[in-house]
Amino acid sequence: MAVSNIRYGAGVTKEVGMDLQNMGAKNVCLMTDKNLSHLPPVQVVMDSLVKNGITFELYDNVRVEPTDTSFMDAIEFAKRGAFDAYVAVGGGSTMDTCKAANLYASNPQSEFLDYVNAPIGKGKPVSVPLKPLIAVPTTSGTGSETTGVAIFDYEHLKVKTGIASRAIKPTLGLVDPLHTLHMPGQVVANSGFDVLCHALESYTALPYHMRSPCPSNPISRPAYQGSNPISDIWSVQALRIVAKYLKRAVRNPDDLEARSNMHLASAFAGIGFGNAGVHLCHGMSYPISGLVKTYKAKDYNVDHPLVPHGLSVVLTSPAVFTFTAKMFPERHLETAEILGADTRTAKIQDAGPVLADTLRKFLFDLNVDNGLAAIGYSKADIPALVKGTLPQERVTKLAPRPQSEEDLSALFEASMKLY
Amino acid sequence: MAVSNIRYGAGVTKEVGMDLQNMGAKNVCLMTDKNLSHLPPVQVVMDSLVKNGITFELYDNVRVEPTDTSFMDAIEFAKRGAFDAYVAVGGGSTMDTCKAANLYASNPQSEFLDYVNAPIGKGKPVSVPLKPLIAVPTTSGTGSETTGVAIFDYEHLKVKTGIASRAIKPTLGLVDPLHTLHMPGQVVANSGFDVLCHALESYTALPYHMRSPCPSNPISRPAYQGSNPISDIWSVQALRIVAKYLKRAVRNPDDLEARSNMHLASAFAGIGFGNAGVHLCHGMSYPISGLVKTYKAKDYNVDHPLVPHGLSVVLTSPAVFTFTAKMFPERHLETAEILGADTRTAKIQDAGPVLADTLRKFLFDLNVDNGLAAIGYSKADIPALVKGTLPQERVTKLAPRPQSEEDLSALFEASMKLY
Ligand SMILES: NC(=O)c1ccc[n+]([C@@H]2O[C@H](COP(=O)([O-])OP(=O)(O)OC[C@H]3O[C@@H](n4cnc5c(N)ncnc54)[C@H](O)[C@@H]3O)[C@@H](O)[C@H]2O)c1
Ligand SMILES: NC(=O)c1ccc[n+]([C@@H]2O[C@H](COP(=O)([O-])OP(=O)(O)OC[C@H]3O[C@@H](n4cnc5c(N)ncnc54)[C@H](O)[C@@H]3O)[C@@H](O)[C@H]2O)c1
Ligand SMILES: [Fe+2]
Ligand SMILES: [Fe+2]
Repeated sequence: MAVSNIRYGAGVTKEVGMDLQNMGAKNVCLMTDKNLSHLPPVQVVMDSLVKNGITFELYDNVRVEPTDTSFMDAIEFAKRGAFDAYVAVGGGSTMDTCKAANLYASNPQSEFLDYVNAPIGKGKPVSVPLKPLIAVPTTSGTGSETTGVAIFDYEHLKVKTGIASRAIKPTLGLVDPLHTLHMPGQVVANSGFDVLCHALESYTALPYHMRSPCPSNPISRPAYQGSNPISDIWSVQALRIVAKYLKRAVRNPDDLEARSNMHLASAFAGIGFGNAGVHLCHGMSYPISGLVKTYKAKDYNVDHPLVPHGLSVVLTSPAVFTFTAKMFPERHLETAEILGADTRTAKIQDAGPVLADTLRKFLFDLNVDNGLAAIGYSKADIPALVKGTLPQERVTKLAPRPQSEEDLSALFEASMKLY
Repeated sequence: MAVSNIRYGAGVTKEVGMDLQNMGAKNVCLMTDKNLSHLPPVQVVMDSLVKNGITFELYDNVRVEPTDTSFMDAIEFAKRGAFDAYVAVGGGSTMDTCKAANLYASNPQSEFLDYVNAPIGKGKPVSVPLKPLIAVPTTSGTGSETTGVAIFDYEHLKVKTGIASRAIKPTLGLVDPLHTLHMPGQVVANSGFDVLCHALESYTALPYHMRSPCPSNPISRPAYQGSNPISDIWSVQALRIVAKYLKRAVRNPDDLEARSNMHLASAFAGIGFGNAGVHLCHGMSYPISGLVKTYKAKDYNVDHPLVPHGLSVVLTSPAVFTFTAKMFPERHLETAEILGADTRTAKIQDAGPVLADTLRKFLFDLNVDNGLAAIGYSKADIPALVKGTLPQERVTKLAPRPQSEEDLSALFEASMKLY
């Protein structure tokens, strides 16, 4: 269980200039996306930098759902700037891009694939020191401000993959609920589904003492350790908040209490899954977003087809948890209860279906697209979706139940239609 | 909010040699107390150091409930040894001594009072880097493996005080439940009461947004921030474990489940209070243990009179929470419920008495001494006890309700007899 340093409160972002000064930063890289660059969160940060006399350059070319190409562009910018600190203001797309920029600018000799997760990349351990990075999340979803993970779409293979190393974990996360007030409803919903799946997957992940291999030297152990008594606390707490506040946060932009709580839940779930890991919803989501055809998400102000990450993970959740509940059914039933199911008369062998029904109802209430079919996939795509899931072994092997290719096919098929 | 770096599991202590090797340590200081130096926890650590070819020197002169004199002795040892890393194996007494040794050996020019909390010391911020310190707790109480706090008895004033700085927080805590199997019953009980009070005090501490002053520069803010949504999670979770497992852990040395859970609860409560703070039970405990006359605690294998820390905090808890429940009665009632009270028909204005009765019953069931009178104090001592509490402003000002000297007198008086 490792350190994540976060500061929570309405208005904490205003302190970012002082924090950078305390770190001795003189030449700062401020990263965001085009959409956010005109919105208050970025303005607040710039004002604080100016007020504290911090020189900075703005990079606002982050791609929503980044790719290797977009990462490379940010990396080149970072290399040229020779920055001594980074500030990322945005959702997971921005924070992840900034982590990659910091990593490769601190390692100018390295090849891009060096640090990308195996088997797609070489998964080398990071041994050089990075510059301080302050993450200011503006969505309530990825928890990327607390994790050592950066996700991108590897265009060549049309599949998402990432970089995972404790070295890229932000130095400090400023979790400021005021930023959530500008979030469009669909971004609240989709990023909230990401929190939901982080919590459910990390809580049901293979327990830490059953994970293998278990490298004898602590330094060789992965960040994703399997579920454990510490990550469980974060995951359960995040799930409770989702159950209580997500619908309110989606429906009412002025519900500061609900949006604040979801912002905190995102960080909690991040600490949970950042230590325990995620499994099948995430493993299967990477080809779902990588192979996107023409789907355009409402409220996402971008010029390319896009399945938002949170949507790509949640659409398979009823099928996935029906499948995984064969193992550790008590935990599955417990999460269904937290999400509002009446489990008093439920049988333990029905844990999977009970949780799946609870999730379906939850998604239906929030008008979520009716399964993979509704976002453009058909039966004919299943082999490609399965093929794109196989290299995601780093996460899929944390599922409590091993999966054959047939199992994966069946899970995609069962996710075509939800209601 | 900083989360601490801990590794939990039966047997994790065996990895300490590898951890030190990964840190590049070559010349290590191993600290413990005389009693523990012959017991398995220290043996396991030494075996691991030898196996990994780590040179070390053993210091086993830690005083149980340390003093400035005993701290100085350890500091001199550390200065002479020019160590590049520290391992502390023991309870709070050992971990705290080791933190102080590391701090002053890394700052050889400084005076002892420089870093001691004001108003007794100068409370200077720490600006030099310290050496890595691995803490291996063997009691289930202080949570010192997760905190930036080191407590000692300032003999000259006959009062406990301490050093508080994020800089002295251990690099890594190895929370290994196997060590708890050797703990005598009274040490389990008293250190468990410390967990109980850490959890209750941090959960009922003044909320973070009501604390004053609130320094505008984040670097000047104290580690003790008042209760907040993150520390609350740890405090409540620790309290639930105490409610479920403390009695079992005291009564049965072989109940590994209960003792393991209490070991984890100790770290959880440490993360909670290390960020939120403690208040009156702790503030008032410092003169209770500092002014000890002849009391000798059963099961504590030491040659000096001693009121164990956990006992010194818990004896005032019924009076303290009756007093503080005037503010935030809901939280007080909630903790009573977690501790087993039936609160369905309780009135909110009775929160204080309900919690106090619950605590009294809990202590009675565990045969705890009947109040301050039973450990040697009488009415005549109250002025001295109050006087010793006044300099503990750093913690007492975190109480949800301000206290006059008369209030403090009344609290000590109400704590003379419990049942
Ligand atoms: N690093 C991790 O641990 C981790 C975990 C999960 C997901 N991810 C990755 O994060 C990415 C998704 O990130 P996300 O869901 O946070 O969204 P995002 O960063 O992709 O942003 C989504 C959209 O919302 C807009 N937006 C963001 N905040 C806003 C605000 N406050 N007001 C108005 N508009 C706002 C953005 O401009 C963008 O158009 C994916 O690439 C995903 O794979 C990373
Ligand atoms: N730093 C912090 O955050 C913090 C918090 C609370 C208390 N404290 C301080 O910690 C000290 C108390 O520490 P403690 O309660 O952990 O006890 P301790 O370190 O004083 O040890 C108590 C006794 O138990 C023995 N012992 C410890 N572990 C044992 C084991 N596994 N088997 C057999 N015997 C064992 C010791 O040898 C000693 O005799 C006090 O000075 C207190 O003020 C510090
Ligand atoms: Fe995610
Ligand atoms: Fe304590």
